[in-house]
Amino acid sequence: MKKFWLFALIFLIATSLFNAQTLKSPDGKFQMDFSLKNGVPYYNLSYLGKTVVEDSKLGLRLLKDGDIKFASEIDSKENQGKNLNDGFVKTAEKTDSKNETWQPVLGEKKNYINNYNELAVTLTQPSNDRYIIIKFRLFNDGLGFRYEFPQQKNLNYFVIKEEDSEINFPTDMKAWWLAGDYDSEEYQTQTSNISEIPKLWPTSYDGNASQTLIKNAVQMPLMLKKEGKEPLYINLSEAALINYSAANLDVDAKNFSFKTHLTPDAQGAKGYIQTPAVSPWRTIIVSPKAENILASKMIFNLNEPTKYKDTSWIHPTKFMGVWWEMIIGKSQWAYSTADNVHIGITDFSKLTPNGKHAANNEKVKKYIDFAAANGFDALLIEGWNIGWEDWFGHSKEFVFDFITPYPDFDLPMLNDYAHSKGIKLIMHHETSGSATNYERWAPKAFDLMNKYGYDAVKTGYVGNIIPRGEHHFSQWMINHYQRIVDLAAEHHIMVDSHESIRPTGLNRTYPNWIAAEAARGTEFEAFGGNNPDHQTILPFTRYMGGPMDYTPGIFQTQLNYYFPGDKRFVKTTLAKQLALYVVMYSPLQMAADLPENYEKHMDAFQFIKDVALDWDDTKILAAEPGDYIHTARKAKGTDNWFVGGITDENARDYTVDFSFLDPNRKYEATVYEDGKDADYINNPQSYHIYKKIITSKTKLPMHLVRSGGYAISVKPVK
Amino acid sequence: MKKFWLFALIFLIATSLFNAQTLKSPDGKFQMDFSLKNGVPYYNLSYLGKTVVEDSKLGLRLLKDGDIKFASEIDSKENQGKNLNDGFVKTAEKTDSKNETWQPVLGEKKNYINNYNELAVTLTQPSNDRYIIIKFRLFNDGLGFRYEFPQQKNLNYFVIKEEDSEINFPTDMKAWWLAGDYDSEEYQTQTSNISEIPKLWPTSYDGNASQTLIKNAVQMPLMLKKEGKEPLYINLSEAALINYSAANLDVDAKNFSFKTHLTPDAQGAKGYIQTPAVSPWRTIIVSPKAENILASKMIFNLNEPTKYKDTSWIHPTKFMGVWWEMIIGKSQWAYSTADNVHIGITDFSKLTPNGKHAANNEKVKKYIDFAAANGFDALLIEGWNIGWEDWFGHSKEFVFDFITPYPDFDLPMLNDYAHSKGIKLIMHHETSGSATNYERWAPKAFDLMNKYGYDAVKTGYVGNIIPRGEHHFSQWMINHYQRIVDLAAEHHIMVDSHESIRPTGLNRTYPNWIAAEAARGTEFEAFGGNNPDHQTILPFTRYMGGPMDYTPGIFQTQLNYYFPGDKRFVKTTLAKQLALYVVMYSPLQMAADLPENYEKHMDAFQFIKDVALDWDDTKILAAEPGDYIHTARKAKGTDNWFVGGITDENARDYTVDFSFLDPNRKYEATVYEDGKDADYINNPQSYHIYKKIITSKTKLPMHLVRSGGYAISVKPVK
Repeated sequence: MKKFWLFALIFLIATSLFNAQTLKSPDGKFQMDFSLKNGVPYYNLSYLGKTVVEDSKLGLRLLKDGDIKFASEIDSKENQGKNLNDGFVKTAEKTDSKNETWQPVLGEKKNYINNYNELAVTLTQPSNDRYIIIKFRLFNDGLGFRYEFPQQKNLNYFVIKEEDSEINFPTDMKAWWLAGDYDSEEYQTQTSNISEIPKLWPTSYDGNASQTLIKNAVQMPLMLKKEGKEPLYINLSEAALINYSAANLDVDAKNFSFKTHLTPDAQGAKGYIQTPAVSPWRTIIVSPKAENILASKMIFNLNEPTKYKDTSWIHPTKFMGVWWEMIIGKSQWAYSTADNVHIGITDFSKLTPNGKHAANNEKVKKYIDFAAANGFDALLIEGWNIGWEDWFGHSKEFVFDFITPYPDFDLPMLNDYAHSKGIKLIMHHETSGSATNYERWAPKAFDLMNKYGYDAVKTGYVGNIIPRGEHHFSQWMINHYQRIVDLAAEHHIMVDSHESIRPTGLNRTYPNWIAAEAARGTEFEAFGGNNPDHQTILPFTRYMGGPMDYTPGIFQTQLNYYFPGDKRFVKTTLAKQLALYVVMYSPLQMAADLPENYEKHMDAFQFIKDVALDWDDTKILAAEPGDYIHTARKAKGTDNWFVGGITDENARDYTVDFSFLDPNRKYEATVYEDGKDADYINNPQSYHIYKKIITSKTKLPMHLVRSGGYAISVKPVK
Repeated sequence: MKKFWLFALIFLIATSLFNAQTLKSPDGKFQMDFSLKNGVPYYNLSYLGKTVVEDSKLGLRLLKDGDIKFASEIDSKENQGKNLNDGFVKTAEKTDSKNETWQPVLGEKKNYINNYNELAVTLTQPSNDRYIIIKFRLFNDGLGFRYEFPQQKNLNYFVIKEEDSEINFPTDMKAWWLAGDYDSEEYQTQTSNISEIPKLWPTSYDGNASQTLIKNAVQMPLMLKKEGKEPLYINLSEAALINYSAANLDVDAKNFSFKTHLTPDAQGAKGYIQTPAVSPWRTIIVSPKAENILASKMIFNLNEPTKYKDTSWIHPTKFMGVWWEMIIGKSQWAYSTADNVHIGITDFSKLTPNGKHAANNEKVKKYIDFAAANGFDALLIEGWNIGWEDWFGHSKEFVFDFITPYPDFDLPMLNDYAHSKGIKLIMHHETSGSATNYERWAPKAFDLMNKYGYDAVKTGYVGNIIPRGEHHFSQWMINHYQRIVDLAAEHHIMVDSHESIRPTGLNRTYPNWIAAEAARGTEFEAFGGNNPDHQTILPFTRYMGGPMDYTPGIFQTQLNYYFPGDKRFVKTTLAKQLALYVVMYSPLQMAADLPENYEKHMDAFQFIKDVALDWDDTKILAAEPGDYIHTARKAKGTDNWFVGGITDENARDYTVDFSFLDPNRKYEATVYEDGKDADYINNPQSYHIYKKIITSKTKLPMHLVRSGGYAISVKPVK
């Protein structure tokens, strides 16, 4: 009998060992433990021996195969044991590792390093005779994991009720969060402890043209900070969101725990899966230094290399736009005074012009002239096409055809005029959320672009989605954005998507998806305002997955310049606007203000003209989310550097240490800094420009006024 | 004071008169009274002085403009008084009349007569400063009415919560009805009194690939009969269903009352209206004779004339198909044994053939040979394109591409082969309900058809709709069918839509929409059976709005011929199958059985070869819904007549009176009748054929066995 117990003990230990598995990062600092407890998968994560993530459950709940009508019965007996979250035994495990260097088509560095150890656990449900794989990749900057659903006899199609991936933290932390939503990321970031989120959530958002809030949920990328003597910065996000719905995170504020909350479709289903398939990666980037969060390329490493053989048609683009004047209300997108038009029926040439249509031949030519004279690549023109009279708010499906210009917009003439001056026109496709209609017309619209040599399109998704009941972040729309990017690639067109899903590193795979908005951009300075700390947070959140078309460069920040008594203003100094071109990475950058405002400050405008868009190297010099960011970048194929620093609502001093420069060269620095009397409220246009010879030993003290900043252009002295 | 009361009385009478209005049919037999009572519009209808329809309310309830989120709050204070169903005053009325003759592109007669008196009442809501028009047209065969929404300052966009058009009858009546549904019309017709509907409703339907039943509702066209000494036949339907959702009818069985019940979208909204707009017509066809119901062309008269300038490419089509062998289970649509395929990824040439794929080169050539040898116009081939392995039941969106043939289907070769023998191939586009996907590929698919000279397509919508949450009969899908018909017209392609919305006379306006299924067709003989009375009812219901692709012509009715022990059988005699080509009008007619079955009965098959598809005249000789129909039709441009008669489960005798023939000519009649020992269960293939010289004075007694029939081909003797 004693012998029996001994064998039993050995068996238990063996089983336990077999069910648990440890993975370490290449540098040995991170450890991830996977375990099965009563058939349920768990993982945890530690850094330097200290728990970062406590034991957290993994798994998915399913709806009955293909039959959405059973959505309300998911928890009925019929579905018990049919989910993919329990009843598992581990039937295989496989480890792998990689250490490679790859080059992005456009990026912040010449080389990105992809270095991880991998554990793939095969989990079988004997009761259903089917299996899934959970794959973990542990990098030197954190953890990524995803679900894989191999094609097999008993797992061909399923419908997701919810993905229940937990991320449980041992303690309360500071969080920079947006209210959870299925349709909009255009909210102000809230800063609070996790434990305070439920209290603050109800007042954490404002109205939006399309919004479906998720109570007590927050959006990803989510930035967290464990404060104290040994601070730890943590970023939660997702990578490679393809053919799956986007996730928010449900917050358990008492237990400092987060859980994925996918976006449903019109029927409440959260994903239609046909195997073989994989989920997006869930990413947990961790570092004691905030700078390392910004420097992390984990999200891009978790995306697939591009499949495009030829990427020569993808290029950085600096552009101006017939845009800001409509945003602030000085001009209009619409051509006429009509308020109810029918595409294909209404004769727009017979409507009464409203006299405020910006996209007219005369004005566009002036913009082209200015953009060309100042070395820009391109000009965006919004409001060029018929349909803006009633484009918004009516759930109208056939709102635009994307091919017919307004009567006062001579597309061939303006295109010829632009090309003759070296300017490309950027096409604008506002869909009004009517994605079905856009899919109908996109092939013709892209053919039109090819015919006239447009090579970039700004898409827009303002308003509720059609198919009605779908959301901006639901699987159908995720696939829609992808379809448009694919179609654009066939036409060698770059895409800048607005009001779309936030990027998840997909520009590695689809580098023509050159940028997106998908956050609260500069336009909101006119729609309700962005806080002074806004741009010190976005790089830690929205930018983690890819470039944003933030549209910086507003010099005339006070709107009472246009409209006496108007109290709206852009909460920034002019110098801070310049810094954004360095701090907020994008290969697509706009100079968003009106030419007349740049003409008054051509000395400062010079920085925008000079600044690079594609980089061989990037140094995050100093950063603290919500407080400040200082960044230096080395322009592609040159020894030119650009440095930018911004601060939040507090004035700060910072000394730029140029030790990143080549020690064997001398450089001329052109410094654009806040004027001594600059103030983002009372005197935003006060700036000071000077030149200085510097070396790698130079240490340059900078003073940033509240919501101020500086930009430095650094060129080798020949 | 007396004077005051006198004036008040006069005022009341005048107001009452002004609010009430009477309309009479051109022949004076019908009278429609419109009235406003406390601001609510009502109408009634009488025939020869007797009430047909009692005072019935009209109007629509709305959701808050464009904001579907308020669906649940429709009855809240916020929306009170905002509907379009009360608070009206009559501000204008206009009468009109028309008596015209028009020619359908393809039809049952050379000339259709459109003769009506019209009343258009303008109803204004002073509280909202907006108005609508209710338009009534009273014909000699009944009433049509619709809502019109002119474009105006305060009525540009609205969302329909429900259209509440009542049709209140004074007494109980016999009804031939289908269970109400948002997705399927493929049910058996139920026959009962109105008062019995709620009791019978729960057992009135069987399962369907896509169905969303509406409790206690019934479908249109709905056939009713007031029994007794003065019988009255009444047909309720709709005409010109464009950019609006289809209606079922809610039944108030106690009050013999019906009310429109529109099909909702995924969000519960029942129509997104941008003015100017009109609702479909609601039609009430009334006659003491059942034959006149079948002869009524009111639904077509209420549709717009075609806008196509050239209709020469639209032609009657008699076709065979690689189809019935899959329906009964002898062959398969799918090519391989795989059960999970990905269009664009799976290499179908590397899959294992299942050995039962019907659409293979060898078999298709044999079908072409037989169709060509017997004078057919065309051959339908289903299962020609990749994707059938998992086409159904998985809510899979990218299920077909509509352009890629299976490895064993050589499209160019087969097309050349068919054309060389005078046969056109009919394209098949099964969408699996994935309408979004079909819209993406249809332009390419139609280009392919043009390339190879296909001029007709059979579309299919088996399964739940994508956009998910939409229904086969919701507004988005109504618009989808229309978009496909429009696109087809651009390509000079005729459309035969299956599992689509039932026709509402739109083939007048879009004559390339040559036929539809949209009811329980012959295929259901293999899926659960059609009752013997089925075909005696369909012309009174489904066919009222336009031709059906019923796929008659099954000679081998007992499926144990193929599968020993199989108890399925087509509930008909062979002779009845022939009669269907005359009784059930369609310019698109299939000979649905296998060539091998026709080869055994070439004498009977001769009728199918001979029968015309387009007509100069039609006489409904005798008809009673659910019992029998006898019809004579005169072939287009000839003096040839074809006569057909069918009966339900009861044997019947009927004497054909040929007085419709030209009295100055002699004719040779070829009579195809049930054999003396014929029986639809035990001896369905017993038939008798004989020839006889006849004149307009001939009276030919026919005996129809139970579920039997006869067909007569009549040609002038030269």
